[in-house]
Amino acid sequence: MARVRGILETVLYCDDLDAAQRFYADVLGLETDADTSTLMRTFRVAPEQVLLVFDPSVSEPAGRDVPSHGTLGAGHVALLIGDDDLPAWRGRLAAHGVEIEREITWPQNGRRDRSIYVRDPGGNSVELVTGDIWDDSGA
Amino acid sequence: MARVRGILETVLYCDDLDAAQRFYADVLGLETDADTSTLMRTFRVAPEQVLLVFDPSVSEPAGRDVPSHGTLGAGHVALLIGDDDLPAWRGRLAAHGVEIEREITWPQNGRRDRSIYVRDPGGNSVELVTGDIWDDSGA
Repeated sequence: MARVRGILETVLYCDDLDAAQRFYADVLGLETDADTSTLMRTFRVAPEQVLLVFDPSVSEPAGRDVPSHGTLGAGHVALLIGDDDLPAWRGRLAAHGVEIEREITWPQNGRRDRSIYVRDPGGNSVELVTGDIWDDSGA
Repeated sequence: MARVRGILETVLYCDDLDAAQRFYADVLGLETDADTSTLMRTFRVAPEQVLLVFDPSVSEPAGRDVPSHGTLGAGHVALLIGDDDLPAWRGRLAAHGVEIEREITWPQNGRRDRSIYVRDPGGNSVELVTGDIWDDSGA
Protein backbone atom coordinates (compact mmCIF):
# COMPACT_ATOMS: atom_id res chain seq x y z
CA MET A 1 0.00 0.00 0.00
CA ALA A 2 1.29 3.45 -0.86
CA ARG A 3 1.50 5.02 2.58
CA VAL A 4 3.92 7.54 4.09
CA ARG A 5 5.19 6.18 7.40
CA GLY A 6 7.42 8.99 8.66
CA ILE A 7 9.60 12.01 7.92
CA LEU A 8 13.22 10.96 7.43
CA GLU A 9 14.76 14.29 6.42
CA THR A 10 13.82 17.69 7.80
CA VAL A 11 15.75 20.49 6.11
CA LEU A 12 16.90 23.98 7.03
CA TYR A 13 19.27 26.34 5.23
CA CYS A 14 22.17 28.38 6.56
CA ASP A 15 24.98 30.06 4.66
CA ASP A 16 27.48 29.39 7.49
CA LEU A 17 27.60 25.62 7.96
CA ASP A 18 30.33 25.73 10.60
CA ALA A 19 28.16 28.03 12.71
CA ALA A 20 25.18 25.74 12.10
CA GLN A 21 27.24 22.76 13.24
CA ARG A 22 28.25 24.53 16.43
CA PHE A 23 24.64 25.46 17.13
CA TYR A 24 22.98 22.12 16.46
CA ALA A 25 25.77 19.93 17.84
CA ASP A 26 27.29 21.97 20.68
CA VAL A 27 24.27 23.97 21.85
CA LEU A 28 21.39 21.61 21.08
CA GLY A 29 23.45 18.45 21.53
CA LEU A 30 22.49 16.69 18.31
CA GLU A 31 24.72 13.87 17.15
CA THR A 32 26.78 14.67 14.06
CA ASP A 33 29.94 13.54 12.34
CA ALA A 34 33.12 15.38 11.42
CA ASP A 35 31.76 16.36 8.02
CA THR A 36 33.32 19.50 6.56
CA SER A 37 31.32 19.46 3.33
CA THR A 38 30.55 22.82 1.74
CA LEU A 39 27.09 21.48 0.83
CA MET A 40 25.52 20.38 4.07
CA ARG A 41 25.66 19.08 7.62
CA THR A 42 23.75 16.06 8.94
CA PHE A 43 22.36 15.79 12.46
CA ARG A 44 20.86 12.62 13.87
CA VAL A 45 17.83 13.44 16.00
CA ALA A 46 16.21 10.05 16.50
CA PRO A 47 15.94 6.70 14.72
CA GLU A 48 14.76 7.45 11.17
CA GLN A 49 14.87 11.21 11.83
CA VAL A 50 17.67 13.45 10.62
CA LEU A 51 17.97 17.22 10.40
CA LEU A 52 19.90 18.37 7.35
CA VAL A 53 21.29 21.91 7.09
CA PHE A 54 22.28 23.00 3.59
CA ASP A 55 24.16 26.01 2.29
CA PRO A 56 21.59 27.19 -0.27
CA SER A 57 24.26 28.72 -2.52
CA VAL A 58 25.55 25.16 -3.05
CA SER A 59 22.32 23.15 -2.92
CA GLU A 60 20.25 25.41 -5.15
CA PRO A 61 22.11 25.48 -8.48
CA ALA A 62 20.89 22.94 -11.04
CA GLY A 63 23.05 20.08 -12.18
CA ARG A 64 23.52 18.17 -8.93
CA ASP A 65 22.97 14.40 -8.83
CA VAL A 66 19.79 14.99 -6.85
CA PRO A 67 17.06 17.55 -7.55
CA SER A 68 18.11 21.04 -6.50
CA HIS A 69 16.58 22.96 -3.63
CA GLY A 70 17.46 25.96 -1.50
CA THR A 71 15.61 28.77 0.22
CA LEU A 72 16.16 32.31 1.42
CA GLY A 73 14.61 33.60 4.61
CA ALA A 74 13.83 32.14 8.00
CA GLY A 75 12.60 28.55 8.14
CA HIS A 76 11.15 26.82 11.18
CA VAL A 77 11.48 23.53 13.00
CA ALA A 78 10.06 22.28 16.31
CA LEU A 79 12.10 19.83 18.35
CA LEU A 80 10.64 17.69 21.13
CA ILE A 81 12.18 17.95 24.57
CA GLY A 82 11.33 16.36 27.90
CA ASP A 83 8.47 17.72 29.98
CA ASP A 84 10.70 18.56 32.90
CA ASP A 85 13.73 19.82 30.99
CA LEU A 86 12.82 23.47 30.48
CA PRO A 87 15.01 24.70 33.35
CA ALA A 88 17.94 22.67 32.04
CA TRP A 89 17.39 24.06 28.54
CA ARG A 90 17.18 27.65 29.76
CA GLY A 91 20.50 27.08 31.52
CA ARG A 92 22.18 25.51 28.53
CA LEU A 93 20.99 28.22 26.14
CA ALA A 94 22.17 30.95 28.50
CA ALA A 95 25.55 29.27 28.91
CA HIS A 96 25.99 29.44 25.14
CA GLY A 97 24.75 33.02 24.87
CA VAL A 98 21.65 32.03 22.89
CA GLU A 99 18.81 34.45 23.50
CA ILE A 100 15.29 33.10 24.04
CA GLU A 101 13.03 35.02 21.65
CA ARG A 102 9.72 33.85 23.08
CA GLU A 103 8.17 31.39 25.51
CA ILE A 104 4.62 30.15 25.07
CA THR A 105 2.30 27.93 27.11
CA TRP A 106 -0.10 26.10 24.82
CA PRO A 107 -3.77 25.96 25.81
CA GLN A 108 -4.53 22.91 23.68
CA ASN A 109 -5.43 19.46 24.96
CA GLY A 110 -5.11 20.27 28.64
CA ARG A 111 -1.46 19.32 28.88
CA ARG A 112 -0.13 22.88 29.06
CA ASP A 113 2.83 22.05 26.85
CA ARG A 114 5.43 24.79 26.65
CA SER A 115 7.66 26.11 23.88
CA ILE A 116 10.92 28.04 23.92
CA TYR A 117 11.87 29.78 20.67
CA VAL A 118 15.42 30.64 19.64
CA ARG A 119 17.12 31.52 16.34
CA ASP A 120 19.84 29.43 14.74
CA PRO A 121 22.84 31.09 13.01
CA GLY A 122 20.86 31.17 9.74
CA GLY A 123 17.99 33.06 11.37
CA ASN A 124 15.72 30.01 11.39
CA SER A 125 13.15 29.87 14.17
CA VAL A 126 13.94 26.82 16.31
CA GLU A 127 11.25 25.78 18.79
CA LEU A 128 11.86 23.48 21.72
CA VAL A 129 8.48 22.06 22.73
CA THR A 130 7.56 19.72 25.56
CA GLY A 131 4.94 17.66 23.72
CA ASP A 132 2.80 17.07 20.65
CA ILE A 133 0.70 20.23 20.64
CA TRP A 134 -1.07 19.05 17.46
CA ASP A 135 -2.45 15.93 19.11
CA ASP A 136 -5.79 16.63 20.74
CA SER A 137 -6.93 13.04 20.63
CA GLY A 138 -6.18 12.46 24.30
CA ALA A 139 -7.51 15.78 25.53
CA MET B 1 18.82 16.29 31.04
CA ALA B 2 18.58 18.76 28.18
CA ARG B 3 18.20 16.40 25.25
CA VAL B 4 16.28 16.65 21.97
CA ARG B 5 14.20 13.52 21.52
CA GLY B 6 12.58 14.07 18.12
CA ILE B 7 11.37 16.46 15.44
CA LEU B 8 7.73 17.37 16.00
CA GLU B 9 7.26 19.98 13.24
CA THR B 10 8.79 19.85 9.79
CA VAL B 11 7.93 22.94 7.75
CA LEU B 12 7.57 23.80 4.07
CA TYR B 13 6.19 26.92 2.41
CA CYS B 14 3.72 27.27 -0.45
CA ASP B 15 1.75 30.32 -1.56
CA ASP B 16 -1.25 28.18 -2.59
CA LEU B 17 -2.38 26.32 0.51
CA ASP B 18 -5.39 24.72 -1.19
CA ALA B 19 -3.08 23.22 -3.79
CA ALA B 20 -0.70 22.09 -1.04
CA GLN B 21 -3.60 20.44 0.77
CA ARG B 22 -4.64 18.56 -2.36
CA PHE B 23 -1.06 17.39 -2.92
CA TYR B 24 -0.23 16.26 0.61
CA ALA B 25 -3.66 14.87 1.49
CA ASP B 26 -5.05 13.55 -1.80
CA VAL B 27 -1.86 12.55 -3.62
CA LEU B 28 0.42 11.57 -0.72
CA GLY B 29 -2.40 10.45 1.56
CA LEU B 30 -1.41 12.36 4.68
CA GLU B 31 -4.06 12.84 7.33
CA THR B 32 -5.33 16.39 7.64
CA ASP B 33 -8.36 18.26 8.88
CA ALA B 34 -10.78 20.61 7.16
CA ASP B 35 -8.69 23.65 8.00
CA THR B 36 -9.15 26.57 5.62
CA SER B 37 -6.75 28.91 7.40
CA THR B 38 -4.93 31.43 5.24
CA LEU B 39 -1.81 30.86 7.39
CA MET B 40 -1.10 27.14 7.19
CA ARG B 41 -2.13 23.55 6.74
CA THR B 42 -1.26 20.71 9.15
CA PHE B 43 -0.58 17.15 8.06
CA ARG B 44 -0.18 14.26 10.50
CA VAL B 45 2.59 11.95 9.30
CA ALA B 46 3.21 9.76 12.35
CA PRO B 47 2.90 9.96 16.14
CA GLU B 48 4.80 13.09 17.20
CA GLN B 49 5.53 14.02 13.58
CA VAL B 50 3.60 16.67 11.68
CA LEU B 51 4.30 18.42 8.40
CA LEU B 52 3.23 22.07 8.42
CA VAL B 53 2.84 24.02 5.18
CA PHE B 54 2.73 27.81 5.59
CA ASP B 55 1.90 30.62 3.20
CA PRO B 56 5.07 32.69 3.69
CA SER B 57 3.26 35.94 2.91
CA VAL B 58 1.21 35.36 6.08
CA SER B 59 3.78 33.63 8.33
CA GLU B 60 6.68 35.98 7.63
CA PRO B 61 5.44 39.41 8.74
CA ALA B 62 6.38 40.37 12.30
CA GLY B 63 3.77 40.77 14.99
CA ARG B 64 2.32 37.27 15.17
CA ASP B 65 1.89 35.57 18.55
CA VAL B 66 4.75 33.25 17.66
CA PRO B 67 8.11 34.20 16.14
CA SER B 68 7.82 34.90 12.43
CA HIS B 69 9.31 32.74 9.71
CA GLY B 70 8.90 32.26 5.98
CA THR B 71 11.10 31.37 3.04
CA LEU B 72 11.26 31.84 -0.69
CA GLY B 73 12.57 29.15 -3.00
CA ALA B 74 12.40 25.38 -3.06
CA GLY B 75 12.64 23.53 0.24
CA HIS B 76 13.10 19.81 0.67
CA VAL B 77 11.66 16.97 2.71
CA ALA B 78 12.18 13.20 2.59
CA LEU B 79 9.29 10.93 3.53
CA LEU B 80 9.70 7.27 4.44
CA ILE B 81 7.74 4.73 2.44
CA GLY B 82 7.61 0.92 2.52
CA ASP B 83 10.36 -1.09 0.84
CA ASP B 84 7.97 -2.76 -1.54
CA ASP B 85 5.72 0.16 -2.27
CA LEU B 86 7.57 1.86 -5.12
CA PRO B 87 5.34 0.34 -7.83
CA ALA B 88 2.24 1.43 -5.94
CA TRP B 89 3.68 4.92 -5.54
CA ARG B 90 4.56 5.23 -9.21
CA GLY B 91 0.99 4.28 -10.02
CA ARG B 92 -0.53 6.72 -7.59
CA LEU B 93 1.65 9.61 -8.72
CA ALA B 94 0.86 8.90 -12.38
CA ALA B 95 -2.87 8.72 -11.60
CA HIS B 96 -2.64 12.23 -10.16
CA GLY B 97 -0.51 13.58 -13.02
CA VAL B 98 2.51 14.14 -10.76
CA GLU B 99 5.74 13.85 -12.72
CA ILE B 100 8.67 11.95 -11.20
CA GLU B 101 11.68 14.25 -11.49
CA ARG B 102 14.34 11.70 -10.55
CA GLU B 103 14.81 8.17 -9.20
CA ILE B 104 17.96 7.18 -7.35
CA THR B 105 19.29 3.92 -5.90
CA TRP B 106 21.49 4.63 -2.91
CA PRO B 107 24.78 2.79 -2.61
CA GLN B 108 25.07 3.26 1.16
CA ASN B 109 24.85 0.55 3.78
CA GLY B 110 24.18 -2.32 1.37
CA ARG B 111 20.41 -1.97 1.53
CA ARG B 112 20.00 -0.39 -1.91
CA ASP B 113 17.34 1.96 -0.68
CA ARG B 114 15.58 3.87 -3.43
CA SER B 115 14.22 7.40 -3.72
CA ILE B 116 11.61 8.95 -5.99
CA TYR B 117 11.64 12.75 -6.24
CA VAL B 118 8.64 14.89 -7.12
CA ARG B 119 7.75 18.58 -6.71
CA ASP B 120 4.89 19.86 -4.59
CA PRO B 121 2.73 22.79 -5.79
CA GLY B 122 5.15 25.23 -4.11
CA GLY B 123 8.11 23.81 -6.03
CA ASN B 124 9.50 22.03 -2.98
CA SER B 125 11.48 18.86 -3.66
CA VAL B 126 9.63 15.96 -2.03
CA GLU B 127 11.52 12.69 -1.78
CA LEU B 128 9.89 9.33 -1.13
CA VAL B 129 12.61 7.04 0.23
CA THR B 130 12.44 3.38 1.21
CA GLY B 131 14.74 3.53 4.25
CA ASP B 132 17.10 5.50 6.46
CA ILE B 133 19.92 6.22 4.00
CA TRP B 134 21.81 8.10 6.73
CA ASP B 135 22.07 5.07 9.00
CA ASP B 136 25.16 3.07 8.17
CA SER B 137 25.37 1.47 11.61
CA GLY B 138 23.93 -1.82 10.41
CA ALA B 139 25.79 -1.97 7.10
